[in-house]
Amino acid sequence: MALRAAGGWSVRGWDCDAAAGQEAVRRGALDSVCKTAPEAVSAAQLVILAVPVSRTLPLLESIAGSLADGAVVTDAGSTKGRIVEAAQALLGGRFVGGHPMAGSERSGIAAADGNILREATWFLTPTSSTDPQALQLAVRMVRACGAFPRFCAPGEHDRLAAVLSHLPHLLAYGLAQAAADSVPPEWRNAAGGSFRDGTRVASSAADLWAEILIDNRASVLDSLNAHHEWISRAKAVLEANDLNTLRALLSDAREARAHFPSQEPNTPS
Amino acid sequence: MALRAAGGWSVRGWDCDAAAGQEAVRRGALDSVCKTAPEAVSAAQLVILAVPVSRTLPLLESIAGSLADGAVVTDAGSTKGRIVEAAQALLGGRFVGGHPMAGSERSGIAAADGNILREATWFLTPTSSTDPQALQLAVRMVRACGAFPRFCAPGEHDRLAAVLSHLPHLLAYGLAQAAADSVPPEWRNAAGGSFRDGTRVASSAADLWAEILIDNRASVLDSLNAHHEWISRAKAVLEANDLNTLRALLSDAREARAHFPSQEPNTPS
Repeated sequence: MALRAAGGWSVRGWDCDAAAGQEAVRRGALDSVCKTAPEAVSAAQLVILAVPVSRTLPLLESIAGSLADGAVVTDAGSTKGRIVEAAQALLGGRFVGGHPMAGSERSGIAAADGNILREATWFLTPTSSTDPQALQLAVRMVRACGAFPRFCAPGEHDRLAAVLSHLPHLLAYGLAQAAADSVPPEWRNAAGGSFRDGTRVASSAADLWAEILIDNRASVLDSLNAHHEWISRAKAVLEANDLNTLRALLSDAREARAHFPSQEPNTPS
Repeated sequence: MALRAAGGWSVRGWDCDAAAGQEAVRRGALDSVCKTAPEAVSAAQLVILAVPVSRTLPLLESIAGSLADGAVVTDAGSTKGRIVEAAQALLGGRFVGGHPMAGSERSGIAAADGNILREATWFLTPTSSTDPQALQLAVRMVRACGAFPRFCAPGEHDRLAAVLSHLPHLLAYGLAQAAADSVPPEWRNAAGGSFRDGTRVASSAADLWAEILIDNRASVLDSLNAHHEWISRAKAVLEANDLNTLRALLSDAREARAHFPSQEPNTPS
């Protein structure tokens, strides 16, 4: 949607669910939809794989033989280390790992939104073997979508994404479960904004997120442990009824939050 | 602001910061501002104490001798057990504990918003000694603000607020600190929506929240432990690289989240 709105891009697509592909055309996300993935990519200069992280490599294998000469391939998966290593082993320097840091708890074509990428960070994860021209085309696509391309190594991406995205999801799922286990049904509509925001992404597709968390489990575990260490300190302070130390702990955390520029949510279309 | 917009209420106020009181008049939150708290309450039928939870009882003590005959007193604090017990010991049945489940991470008169209470749950916590007429006046005030009054015992309120509000705040502070400790400065603007929403309330006033968490520490610790139990299970599953069990855990949590009706955020004015 964003590319077509930008103008100058012809977007051909394929979806494993044919009805979703038709709907993508109807909603203006695609110029045309193809019956098979190899058909969709055969004439493309740039191929974007936007599928669950467990499907990226199987899909890449199924299209690798149909790619046009010099075609560039990128993806939109939330993890990069394993995918980039295997994709470059298959395609060499013309695979460029990508991860747009934008989305919502909703899934599928019905939730598609051409504005959600505007001003979002879009990670690109070149390696020493990435073809500079392939990277340049990926950058052009990211900018056309209105997002900001930022480069880092696949492993660095995974460490950043663990704390900036994967941990927040895991905490949200846990908060939703803890609340359901203790709040009687008649009180569940009494929650305020902190609960609503703190659990919003717990509505995200469970299969998709289980795969992401497993794929990035080393970094996710590091982030979980760092968060748990802070929580354990807060717990000890609460148990000791120590108001002044809790004040200092929260004050430091509030200061920490201020170091993260508050990006306004993209207005859903 | 909400009461004055509703019409039929004359609102006299006092703030320990005289400039804030003047600004409240200027912004239309008050009909008039008084130089002292006893002066502000002396002619009131209903007194609303909207101060940090550590200030509620000292303020109540300072005005108790100036209350008009039959005046009703309520508060807006995030904890109820200790406050209601002491306030009723002082005032008897004409004190009605209250807690509007609405707010934001911002503080002070500059952040005041007459629409934030619309369709919010407003806990009222009557006890067996509460005067029914006092409760009725509190209900009338809550409805005039556009909120929904809901009744429960002070202790039940504190258990519900622990998981629906206090735990989300604590997790947000912890997430902000864990992220600041591990994300280099140049990457701090790369976070997506899950981090932004998961840490929004970590911008809340630290002193205010330290007092709330300490005051409700028994229930907050119970909620923390329930959340930690879930996180520990997720951690064990990640360590075991067990995709299927993680899928089931997240799927259950997603289902749990669906039991909490998603109230749209109140549009800030």
